[in-house]
Order: sequence, then C-alpha cells, then structure tokens
Amino acid sequence: MLDITGTYTDQYQLTMGQVYFLKGHSHHTAIFDYFFRKAPFNGGYAIFAGLQNLLETLKDLRFNEKDLAFLKEIGLNAEYLNYLKDFRFSGKVYSVREGEVVFPGEPIIRIEASIIEAQIIETLLLNILNFQTLIATKASRMKEQAKGGKLIDFGLRRAQGPGGYYASRAAIIGGFEATSNTRAGRDFGIPVSGTMAHSFIQSYEDELTAFRDFSESHPDNTVLLVDTYDTLKSGIPNAIKVGKEMKTRGHKLKGIRLDSGDLAYLARKSREMLDNAGLDYVKIAASNQLDEHLIKSLLDQGAPIDIFGVGTSLVTGQPDAALDGVYKLAYFMDEPRIKLSETIAKITLPHKKQVYRMLDEKGDFTGSDVICLFDEENIDWMIHPYDPLKFKSVEGQEKEALLKPVMENGEILSPALDLSEIAKYSNERLKKLPQEYKRFFNPHIYKVGLSRKLKEERDRLIEEHKMK
Amino acid sequence: MLDITGTYTDQYQLTMGQVYFLKGHSHHTAIFDYFFRKAPFNGGYAIFAGLQNLLETLKDLRFNEKDLAFLKEIGLNAEYLNYLKDFRFSGKVYSVREGEVVFPGEPIIRIEASIIEAQIIETLLLNILNFQTLIATKASRMKEQAKGGKLIDFGLRRAQGPGGYYASRAAIIGGFEATSNTRAGRDFGIPVSGTMAHSFIQSYEDELTAFRDFSESHPDNTVLLVDTYDTLKSGIPNAIKVGKEMKTRGHKLKGIRLDSGDLAYLARKSREMLDNAGLDYVKIAASNQLDEHLIKSLLDQGAPIDIFGVGTSLVTGQPDAALDGVYKLAYFMDEPRIKLSETIAKITLPHKKQVYRMLDEKGDFTGSDVICLFDEENIDWMIHPYDPLKFKSVEGQEKEALLKPVMENGEILSPALDLSEIAKYSNERLKKLPQEYKRFFNPHIYKVGLSRKLKEERDRLIEEHKMK
Repeated sequence: MLDITGTYTDQYQLTMGQVYFLKGHSHHTAIFDYFFRKAPFNGGYAIFAGLQNLLETLKDLRFNEKDLAFLKEIGLNAEYLNYLKDFRFSGKVYSVREGEVVFPGEPIIRIEASIIEAQIIETLLLNILNFQTLIATKASRMKEQAKGGKLIDFGLRRAQGPGGYYASRAAIIGGFEATSNTRAGRDFGIPVSGTMAHSFIQSYEDELTAFRDFSESHPDNTVLLVDTYDTLKSGIPNAIKVGKEMKTRGHKLKGIRLDSGDLAYLARKSREMLDNAGLDYVKIAASNQLDEHLIKSLLDQGAPIDIFGVGTSLVTGQPDAALDGVYKLAYFMDEPRIKLSETIAKITLPHKKQVYRMLDEKGDFTGSDVICLFDEENIDWMIHPYDPLKFKSVEGQEKEALLKPVMENGEILSPALDLSEIAKYSNERLKKLPQEYKRFFNPHIYKVGLSRKLKEERDRLIEEHKMK
Repeated sequence: MLDITGTYTDQYQLTMGQVYFLKGHSHHTAIFDYFFRKAPFNGGYAIFAGLQNLLETLKDLRFNEKDLAFLKEIGLNAEYLNYLKDFRFSGKVYSVREGEVVFPGEPIIRIEASIIEAQIIETLLLNILNFQTLIATKASRMKEQAKGGKLIDFGLRRAQGPGGYYASRAAIIGGFEATSNTRAGRDFGIPVSGTMAHSFIQSYEDELTAFRDFSESHPDNTVLLVDTYDTLKSGIPNAIKVGKEMKTRGHKLKGIRLDSGDLAYLARKSREMLDNAGLDYVKIAASNQLDEHLIKSLLDQGAPIDIFGVGTSLVTGQPDAALDGVYKLAYFMDEPRIKLSETIAKITLPHKKQVYRMLDEKGDFTGSDVICLFDEENIDWMIHPYDPLKFKSVEGQEKEALLKPVMENGEILSPALDLSEIAKYSNERLKKLPQEYKRFFNPHIYKVGLSRKLKEERDRLIEEHKMK
C-alpha cells in the first residue's frame, strides 16, 4: 500500500552516509541491534510485530528519480548520489519470529550490512516495528481480559492517518478477530465487520423502518444499533420486533450493538429483554471508548457482552502512543562498539549477539532470557545487566535460540506466513508465559541477563573508553 | 504517497450504502458536519489541518479492481457493486480555512453529497483530519513556548507507521520550521535537517576524527553530536577543536547537539565553553523526549538553547494520541436530522449551518463563535448549547463567516496553497486569539453558542422525537 522509497528515512542517515562514502568506509560491514527499553503500558512483555512488512520493504527499497532529484536539490555530493542510484539493501537480517513474546533490553532483530545500508534502513525499521509491536501488545492485553469474547477493531477513523492500516494488521497478531477497516481486510486477509451507524437510523423517519430495511438487505448480517433515540424504550423493542420478523422469514438476527450509556446495565437489561422474547441467540456487541481496563471491568460485573468493538485506544496504543525501540551499533570494522551514557541503562551492548530463552520441562518460559555472544557455547550463568551482584545459574536448562536468519543478501529466506498463522503462534507463545508476568499492576519482571563473556566484553570496552 | 481507494473506509459505510442503494434512497442529498467535542491536551483551542490532503483524496477517490473483487468476495450485492464501479465523489464541501484556530462543538467542515457518497468518505475524512489537527495543535503549543527558538521535527522513527509522513506536514502548519523526515521534505517542500547519530561517532576509533571527517564532508552543515562518551570532558572540547579548524579553513561550525543528561546544565556549560573559545556563533540544539512542558521549563531556567528537536510527543500527539472528531448527519431528504443521547452534549445539531466568529475593532477574536442556520441573517443573541440560562448579545459585532465553499461537484475550487502559506495564516490567526485561551492550565473557555433560530429548531426536534 505504502510506497516506501529511499527518502523514507531521517535526513541524518543520508548525511552520515555521504561521509562514509567520501571517506571510503562505505563497504565495511556494521552490526546493529533493534531492541526496546521499557515494556509498553507498564506491562510485563511485548508482542513483536511488523517483521513481514519490514522484510518486504527492505527487499524492494530503492531511491527513485524523485528521491534523487530532491537529494541533488538539497546539495548532496554527485558521486554519492550516483551510489544511491544503484542502492539496494543487500544485508543479512536475524530476527525473533513475528508474534514472539519479547522483553526489554534484548535484541529482537540484528542487521548485518554495509554501514550505509544499515543506517539508511534504520528509520523505516524503527517506524514499522515500534508501531506494530505497540499495537499487537495493546491488542494482546485486551485479548487476555476478554475471556473468550470476540474483539473487533473499529479504529480507522481515529487512527494516526495511514497508521491505521498497520494497526489493523497488528491487532490481529495480538488476538483480535476482525476489523471494520475494509482495506486492511482486503490486503491482509482479515475478516471485515460492519453493519450500521447512527446516521443510518437518523436517515429514516423512524427507527423501526430503518431496522427493517437493513434486515431485508442483509438477512445474514444484521446487527442493529439500538441507542440512537432510547436503548431500552425504543432500540431494543424495535430490534425484538425485527428479530421476530426475521425468524418468520427463516433468518436470524445476528446481534444488537450498544454504543453509549452504562454498558453493563444496558447489556444486562437488553439480554433479559431479548431472552424473554425468544431471541437468546442474538449476540450483544458493545463499543464506546473501550480499552483493556474497561473490558475487564465490564466482565467483572458480569455484563453479558459477547463482542467488543474497540477503536481509539487500540489503534493509537493509548496512553503510550509509542514504543521506545532503538537501533544501536554493536560492531564495525571488525571491532565491537559501545555507546556510553551517564545512565548505565543506556550503555549499549557490543558485539554480534544471540538471545536464549530458558524453558522448563513442559516448554513453558521460566522467566529468564540470556543475551550472549552469537557463537558462545555452554552458557552457565546469567548476570543482571546493570547490577553485578545479581546473577544466577542457568546451567543445564533447556535453551531456545530466538534470533534466526530471515534475510540474506537482501532476499527473504522463507515464504510469508498468513496473518492468522502469526496470530496463532503469538497466542501459543503467550500461553507459555506465566500469568504473573501478564498482570496489569506491578507485573513480575521477566529477567533478561548477560552471559559472563558478554558482560566481560562490555566492561572491558567501558574501561577502555574511560581511560582515553 | 498513500494510495487511498474506496475500501479505505469502515465496512459499515459499504453495508449501509447497500441498503440505501437497494431501497432507492441513494440519490438523496445528505448534509454531514465534521466537528470535535474536546480541545486536545486540555488546551483551549485546536489548529485545523489536513484539508488539502482531504480534498485531493476526495477528488481522486475510486474503487479499483482489487477493491471490487474483494467486495464481491465478501458478498456485496452485484448491482450495488456495479454502482460502486463508477463511484466518484461529486458532492460539495464547505470548510474552515486550513490552519484556522477552531473550537469544540463548531462545524469545521460541511459535506453535501448523496448519502452513499457522504457515508463512504466519512472514515477517510475523520482519519485525515483528526490526526493532522491533533499534531498541528501539539506543534502550535510548542511554538508558543519556544519563544523564537527553532523547532525541528525528529519523529519519524517513533511515529505510528506512515502516520509520520502527515505528522511532519501538520507540524509545519503548527509552527515547526524543519523536519528530519526526508520524504516529507521532498513531497511537502519542508526544509530538511539532519547531521549525525551516535552510531556515526561510534563507528570511529575516536570522537575527534569522527567530528573532523564530518566537518570536511559537510563544511556548511556541521552540527556535532557531543554526548556519545562525555559531553563536557570529550564532546565539547572536541567540537571546539574542530570548530577552530573549520574557522581557519574559512568555514563555520553551525552547531552542537545535546541529546542526554541535564539539558539546562549542559547547555549553559557548553555555551560558556564555546563562547570562551571564540565560537559564540555556534548554535546549541537539544533533543531527548522533549514536549511543550519541557521546552517551557528549559527556557524558564534560562537554558541557552537555540534549536529544539522534538520527536515522539510531537508526531504521536502524546498524551492524547487522538482527536475525538466526529461526522454527524444534520439534514436528509429535505428534513433536519438529529441524534438524541442521554448525555445532552452528545445531541447533534440539525440543519445546514454556518459559523460566525465575532471580532473586535482590531480584528482580534473576542472569544465567541455563533453556529446558526446557513442563511440566517441578523444574528442578535448567542445561547449556550446546553444551558439555556447562559446567553449574550452579539448584535452589531463584526462577524466573520468561517465556512466557505472549497469543493463543488467533486472538483477543488482553489489552487493548493504552499504549506508555508498555510503555516503563516495559522500563525496570524493564533495571534488574534487572546493569551488566556492559550494557557496550559485551565485555559479560558472560548464560547461557542447557538443562534436563537438554530436553538429553537434543535429543541423542536428533540421534543418531536420524545413524543414518538
């Protein structure tokens, strides 16, 4: 959908690229890591999403004529522009699988490419992954609360422009079942859902005729919006009339939708009225500024809601609105690289690395991931990244390597998975994460530690830079 | 950039459209209003943005073959699909000027089109306008605080996917001067800005060589990032060395950038060190999780910062992340239409309407806008929309009509303005808004009232519906 070309980047990537090019560094390979520092929504985990879109974008990334004309206009060097004309991403990508449950501080993607290529793709990589990971995580939090209730994305109108398109995709990875976003349905194979707005009912002289007309035009897909005038006095009685009429014609009224007022109260009353009228198969859908906390509250109160339509908070990832994912240089010209900082948590991890997840005998997560050198064997201890007094043995535990090759020489290594397969994988993985990491309040902290060798290397480099 | 076609909508627009089509209502004209209910960021106003993108989208909106194939696949009626094949938006659009200062409750756009057309465009209209208005407003809040400091958008990497492209545009309308987003620079004529990241310095054995190489490759555009290892002990001393070297070559070091630590303290110290070295022309740029509150705080402390680079909070509109703009039916089949609600503030305003802004003798805003019937003359009183005891005379005041025709029969009526002209207009208009409406805490409430005739009509329709 989105025409991403070489200029879909931060200008400084191109400015730095010119220096690398003119100084003859451009052919050297750099290794960058993508990771985030804080789980979104004060939660205990994130759901990694956006990988497939990233890989497809990298594969086709070029500077087109408009790009090159613009870069010339703003004064980039002519020989460098000539290099950009033939630019393609020819690097390697190692990644955690899309849909995976991931934690702060661990590399989720590793890029190995010439330094110019690796820099130019930084912005689009962050732009794609930060956002989809945020939204998939938000969706999974709602899924955890909905207790089998069906979740539908209604967010396109409040989305951040075309961000809504990818939000609808990420929502499915996190556990949503359908979307109102027809375009996302078309392109990502997501079931689309949508019946009527208030304007439809307002466009008629009376609510009953509006309901009737709709049920005749969509006999298999009628969900009546009941709150345009008065939910219990007008909307539900009219829905019952139409539901009975549909029955006599051999059709079934699929549902009613509540979109204002006290949803818990109205759902209970509506359920009673529908049941008493012999329409116990009619589902109740609810919408109106829902989020994971409201879904939990409604179900805690026993509200008989079958379907939740969620808009703004889902597609914008409120209240966070952004994941703080970053992309940091770890290796260049055969040397490990580090960035220091006054804040120890912001010191980066040098070297080409791997991440191992510790599993128990059932294959469930034990709450420990170890970051180590990529070819390190026999990992015996994991050490807290900033507190050397905290460490523990992981010897003999079952270890699963998380970073796998997904792109080589700019070519995608495996055929794209269906979105539903990614969602299924994510759901299975999240089940392996013990419940206490998924709580809303003070979730248990999943431990991400360093191997001894990696810690030694990092400390050595810190020392070296401090001595300069 | 973004290929918006007919399916860029909520599915229910298409479902309702099928009913209108099959029941023979589709040729009737409907009037819809776009407005929002709450100013974002607990502020006193919003800056309207996105109009030009909306009009261009409407002009070219079609269902393409992929759209039609998908809609067929999900079971829409064949004759209706035939209608959609030839769909184009052929309606009228009245709008407030892009960049205008607008307030909760007043119609900002009025759409007059066949009901199917008016419904199909609802989602994209909201998607475009809600987001850009949110971001332009956020940007204007920063501009108000920056006191002449230059504001640069650094947000693409944290933006909500391709939303970042439009965020960069809206930021300019709100008062930003440049962007790191090269693509937005290319397409919207925004000045682009960008020099170096930490990775650039890390890629060298030492900081000084990195600075030197950069200054040689970009002699007219060198802004040195000074916090990779130690700002005051390494970054600034190295920047001073390179600044002096550039001087001897007849070039000027443009600036240094602080990206971590205590920005107020580091800016003051850096300024001193630069000035003492005879580099008083070198600008200080600061970045790192800035927003309007931090910009205010830094300047209140007297931090000598010339340039602010703002990312996440700008391009995602944190903490709101969405504007609650809605699109409501006001007129259909020659009848005014209303939507009732338990919450009086959610009852809609019927009829085709106009909005007048009251001006004082200098042309400044007096804090009152009146919504009235579109052809109403001699507006004498304005009445609070929900509290009939609050009203005031506006007789004899200078009144400016805000809604003007911008599209007819699906054609744009005026040539597109440059983004800089829109920004200039917005800035001029915001100057006309008295200071107390722009405060952060408890801003004065700008009054949006109804004319007597509009209020009478609304009350009559409420009565009529309650009697049914």
